[in-house]
This record gives sequence, C-alpha cells and structure tokens, in this order.
Amino acid sequence: MPELRKDPVLGRWIIISKSRGKRPNDFSVEGYKTEDGFCPLCPGNEHATPPEVLAFREGDDGREQAPWLVRVVPNKYPALIIEGDLEKEGVGLYDQMNGIGAHEVIVESPDHNHLFADLSPKEMVLVFRAYSERIRDLQKDQRFKYVMVFKNHGSAAGASLEHSHSQLIALPILPRMIVSELAGAESYFRYKERCLFCDMIRQEIQMDKRVVCQNDLFITIMPFAPRTPFEMWVLPKYHSSGFCRQNDEELYSLAEVFSETMKRLNSCIPNVQYNFVLHTEPLRSGGLEHFHFHFEIVPKLTSIAGFEWGSGFYINPMPPEDATILMREALDDPAADETEGKNLPTLDVE
Amino acid sequence: MPELRKDPVLGRWIIISKSRGKRPNDFSVEGYKTEDGFCPLCPGNEHATPPEVLAFREGDDGREQAPWLVRVVPNKYPALIIEGDLEKEGVGLYDQMNGIGAHEVIVESPDHNHLFADLSPKEMVLVFRAYSERIRDLQKDQRFKYVMVFKNHGSAAGASLEHSHSQLIALPILPRMIVSELAGAESYFRYKERCLFCDMIRQEIQMDKRVVCQNDLFITIMPFAPRTPFEMWVLPKYHSSGFCRQNDEELYSLAEVFSETMKRLNSCIPNVQYNFVLHTEPLRSGGLEHFHFHFEIVPKLTSIAGFEWGSGFYINPMPPEDATILMREALDDPAADETEGKNLPTLDVE
Repeated sequence: MPELRKDPVLGRWIIISKSRGKRPNDFSVEGYKTEDGFCPLCPGNEHATPPEVLAFREGDDGREQAPWLVRVVPNKYPALIIEGDLEKEGVGLYDQMNGIGAHEVIVESPDHNHLFADLSPKEMVLVFRAYSERIRDLQKDQRFKYVMVFKNHGSAAGASLEHSHSQLIALPILPRMIVSELAGAESYFRYKERCLFCDMIRQEIQMDKRVVCQNDLFITIMPFAPRTPFEMWVLPKYHSSGFCRQNDEELYSLAEVFSETMKRLNSCIPNVQYNFVLHTEPLRSGGLEHFHFHFEIVPKLTSIAGFEWGSGFYINPMPPEDATILMREALDDPAADETEGKNLPTLDVE
Repeated sequence: MPELRKDPVLGRWIIISKSRGKRPNDFSVEGYKTEDGFCPLCPGNEHATPPEVLAFREGDDGREQAPWLVRVVPNKYPALIIEGDLEKEGVGLYDQMNGIGAHEVIVESPDHNHLFADLSPKEMVLVFRAYSERIRDLQKDQRFKYVMVFKNHGSAAGASLEHSHSQLIALPILPRMIVSELAGAESYFRYKERCLFCDMIRQEIQMDKRVVCQNDLFITIMPFAPRTPFEMWVLPKYHSSGFCRQNDEELYSLAEVFSETMKRLNSCIPNVQYNFVLHTEPLRSGGLEHFHFHFEIVPKLTSIAGFEWGSGFYINPMPPEDATILMREALDDPAADETEGKNLPTLDVE
C-alpha cells in the first residue's frame, strides 16, 4: 500500500509508492511503454489496459464500438490506490496517511505518432473535456481534495515515441504548490479586493511585452519571473477559479490558444520536451474570488535543471521579453526575419 | 546587468542573468570547463581564474607560494554582480531589483581527479572552513541577506571529469526555500517551545530506522518524507542555527560524518550524481532558537526528475527505511550480505 507522508518542516506531502515498479530503479510513472512494436495505448490493444473510465468516440452517438478519439484508463501501476478508507496517523512528530487516490492516463489521440502539439483545436478540446469530466466525476468522492492534471512530454518522462498522453492524480491532500498559490493570491485579494491574476492579465495586455498569443477569451503569457526560458502560462481573460466550470465554447477557445502556443513553441525549439500542469481550485470549492485557473507550461531544458534541482533557486539565462519576441515571430512568414528580432539567437536544447 | 524578479503569486525570487553566457543555450553555471585538456581549476593555471579571494595552503604558514589545498575564486561568469548599489523598483504589480550579489567557486582539491566523496575528513574540513570564512566575510556586506552554498556533481551539472568544486551565491533576498523552512520551524517552536529539528533528531535516534551514520556531534538521517531515493540530511546533534558558528573541532566532526555518508552513497550507487545545499540561518541573524542548520543531499536519479519537475509533487518509489538499510550495509564486510537486507535490490541510475 502506498503512503502519503508529510515533511514536518515544509508541510510538503510526498507519495512513497514502492509497488509501482517491481524494482526501485523502475521509475516509470506510466507503466505504458511501447515494447517490441506493441503499444498498449493504440486502438486494437484496449485489452492491454484496465477497463476505460471514459472515452469520446467518433460521431459522439454513444456507440460502444465506434472508434475512440480520446480515452481515459486507470494507470496500470498507480502511484495511489483507489480502494480503501482514508486512514490518518501520527508517528511521533510525523504525519502520514495511507495512499488512497486515483491515477489515470488520458490517451490524447488514437494515432500513435500524433503529438499533443500536432492536435488541432477541435481535437485538443476533447482532451480538455476529458480532464473536465474526470475531475467532476472524482469530485464526488469525498476522500479526495484535489485532482492534479499534468503532462510530461519527452524522453526523460518516457520513450520518445511513446503514445501521447497526459495523466491525472486525485489526492486526499492539497499539493503544496496549490496551498502556496492560494495563500499568495488570497493575501493580494485581502489587500486589493481584486484577483491577482486578473490584474496581471490587464497589466500584461497593456504592457504587451510578454503576451505570446491570445483570442477573445484566453491568453498565453510568459510570467514576469519565469523559472526557465519559455515558461508560459495559459489563462482565461475572464475570472474563473475552476477549470471544470468552463462550457464547450470556452474550452474551444482555450484549445485554440493552447494549440497555437504549442505550435509556436515547437517551432522555436524543435522536439521540445516539456511539462504542463493544470492549476485549478480545490475540489468542491464552489468558486473562489481570489484564484484563477491556468496551465503552466515548463519546457525541459536539460542542462538548466541541474542547478535548480537541489537549491530550489532558479537562474534563468533568458529574459521572458526576449523569448516572447521569438515566440511571436515563430510560424510567421519569412518577412518577419527582417524585423528587429532577427539578431536574437535560437535556442538549442540537449 | 542581471535582475532579481519576484513572482507575485508565490513570492519566489528568480535571477534573470543574460550576461552569463554569450548564447542563451550556454547554460553553464560555472564557466570553468575542461577544454583540450586544460583545466582552469588545476594548480599552475591560477591565471585562468579571477584573483582568488581565499586559499588554504600547505603548512598553513601563510606563504603565498606554498601549494594550495582549497581555493576560492569569483565565478568567471557570475549570475549576480558584486559592484553597485541595490536598487529596488516596482513595475505595476511586479517587484524587481538589480542583480547585486556574489558568485564564487570553491575548488575542493588541487587534484583534478579527486572527487568530493574521495576527500578524507582532514581534507573535507578545509572545504567547510572555506564555506564558513567566505560566509562570515560576505556577511559584512549589508546589501546581502543570505549566502547559499551548494554543490552540483555529475554530468548534468558539467563535464563528468570536471575538477571538483562547490559554489556560493550571496543574495540580497532570502530564497523562498529558506523563508518556508524558517516559517515551518518557527510555527512548531511557538507551539512546543522546542526546536523541530532537535525533536526530529531525538526521535530518529530512538526509532533508529532512518539513521545512516553518526558520531558524537553529527548525524546523517534520511528524512521521513524524502523527495527522492537516498535523500539525506546531515545535522549537528546539538542545537545550532548558523553554520558559521562551528569551531574547528565541530567542523571536523561534520567532515567525518559527511565523508562517511558520501562514501556509503557512492558504494550504493556507483558514480552517483547529486546536489547538496547548505541550509543555514540568514546573515546577521544572531542565533535562532527555532532553526537548525543542516545539509540536504539530493541524489540526481535522472528518470525520476521528469515527473516532479513541472508538478511540484514528489513520488518516491523507495521508502527511506529501505534505503537506510542499503546505506548501513555499504562499506561493511562481505559477511553483511548474509543479513536480512540481502534480498534488497540494488539501485541503478541512468
């Protein structure tokens, strides 16, 4: 049985999950590797995964046998276990609980070679709908406090040709990252009576130095203090604290902006490896005035990670204003090379 | 000029330091690479570094020309600049200051192939004395609030044969990691009137499940909620909040335990890559009842980093109690293989 343990100094919870791999050097998160040409996430191999918990199919008419477009299955080697009661206990000054939770895999496309960045807005919106439906379903389980949705893309997170997928983990605790963001945003709100993120978006649009792309409803910006070159946040321009509160039209707008962001990123850094994480309100929050859901996209530039990993302190060699110029020029016609940005260097990654 | 920028949500400061490399893909922190067999950190090549700020020499009689044993030089491509006044400004809702600070390199041995883990306690204590003297010197500069001392070892932090060294960065702000630790430890102290770390050490010695090694004055434990397999903390068993307050005898005791810890780690995971970071009180603190200095050693197990990097949430596949058994058996005589730990798997790293 996995365990959740809390660091007594920082209040940070971690998962100890021994059972996920047979050996401790088997650090695979997914357990869905392509081996000998067999991919358990490809159509036709559905028997190789646990029974699906959600699927969107062609025609959307509910026919079980129609080909699926997006499919959600439990992780074969979950970090947390869905069955059981939540048991909390103290061990001296330490706190722990048993590892109750859900760990699911969202297969983003039936096409093995179709990357997330290749998805059209129409395809991508199905992925977002899957996130939303799964969160709303897991929200009914009173044991869970948060659902973390994230994607790892690149060899450090699995084989490079692995079938494109994202993951979600339902947790009986709030991750420290969310606790800290809620606290920061709430303290701003108490002082100003305004949402920090709404203010930030207004200022970014006005300054226009870190806006990557936008449509009527969504915007991608580079944060003022990014951890890495090309870190980006995708946010709704209207106030909304919970990802699940978006209707289909809003999700489509998000998909438009997200898809453009990923295509521009891939054009700036071919074969870029990255993580993204959905930052949304805790389950059953009922809407928060001070929080604003968003995605954080963090490109994985291998050689930079070394420094920050241990120290918790980030040195970023590229101002976000410079990276924004590169992102804006990407995908544009060759004439754009004549603009002021032409002397900016390109960014290689290992 | 580098900049320090604060994330308005999390209060996390980051450094934007464009000037460190000529190109944005030059992510080297040190700028001291071995090229064509020439190592700027080797004896005889002292002209290749900026003038040294500290050196310990053989015989310790102050002769400038005696061979050095440990040498501290400014980083050739510093992340922060030592010259100038600290200027703080707000840009709308954002906060920034110019990148005033110090960035130094501690060369741990004159021998190019001598790793930190190879140092004897007698050699290692000179490295710790260098940390201590540099922190005390930089403390006089009222612009600085914190000195962060850390070491990156392994290819992700530079070439694998690079001359062994650690680094320090003097900062005009407190790193968020330290702010959070101080807050957590202070809240415990307010409730209990005791140091959280002292309580933890007492409990660890009593439980004896996560104690790696110790002597009269220092102890290495695996934390209850480690981020990665083999994460370890080295702490004084007596209460002390500031690393610089230790006398020579105490530093020697630390070196004994630290050296044994590194040798055991290298035996468990040959060629292990790792970071360590010194967590000590802010400059000019005057001694804190609620804080306890320590080193955190975080082995870099490449494939695990992928998951946590973006999400800020850690899944650790190996309970620290299991890793402790492996560490305790390491370096022991072959008969130890007959004990209960013999079926524990060994840990490979990529």
